[in-house]
Amino acid sequence: MKNYELTGRIWLSKDGETILGSGKVTLLQHIEKFGSLRRAASEMKMSYRKAWYSIKQINLIASEPVVVLQRGGKDGGKAFLTKFGTQLLQDFSQQQLAFQEFLNTQNKH
Amino acid sequence: MKNYELTGRIWLSKDGETILGSGKVTLLQHIEKFGSLRRAASEMKMSYRKAWYSIKQINLIASEPVVVLQRGGKDGGKAFLTKFGTQLLQDFSQQQLAFQEFLNTQNKH
Repeated sequence: MKNYELTGRIWLSKDGETILGSGKVTLLQHIEKFGSLRRAASEMKMSYRKAWYSIKQINLIASEPVVVLQRGGKDGGKAFLTKFGTQLLQDFSQQQLAFQEFLNTQNKH
Repeated sequence: MKNYELTGRIWLSKDGETILGSGKVTLLQHIEKFGSLRRAASEMKMSYRKAWYSIKQINLIASEPVVVLQRGGKDGGKAFLTKFGTQLLQDFSQQQLAFQEFLNTQNKH
């Protein structure tokens, strides 16, 4: 319908628990880019505490670790995605694109 | 990915304001079925006040009336969808089906 827009959200869950939505995906993308949880959080204007908790939660729900957090070093620790985490992020990013295409198609009708 | 399920929600908005989501769609379907806002609300275990407010909100945001509320009568008033409202409900219901298909396809991968 004219002037009406279909919008929405998608998320990935496991056993009924949400593991990834758009917010956590952005956090993972930033971790992949910067290799640091503190930097990733700061770029998103998210508190370090919240980012840390998000990562713990993702790792807890996932069938295997998604992010590895390493303490220490002069930058205050490193963070990186496991091979599984990289795959998960890639798959969900593609689903987000497909969903955006779905919405675009619906909105053209 | 195995054991992971993609889920989501869609809603219809106009000028950035939500007009229809899954809850309001159910309310409209019940109004269509029972011809009464009180009955529709009661079937959904929703307060009459909340249902009434939802309808006012839909009518306010939509480009033309979606539901007509008629006061009085022994059943305490009637409610029915306008032609435009019927079309809106039908379109959105089809979009919900298409979205469900989208999710099913994604979850088969």
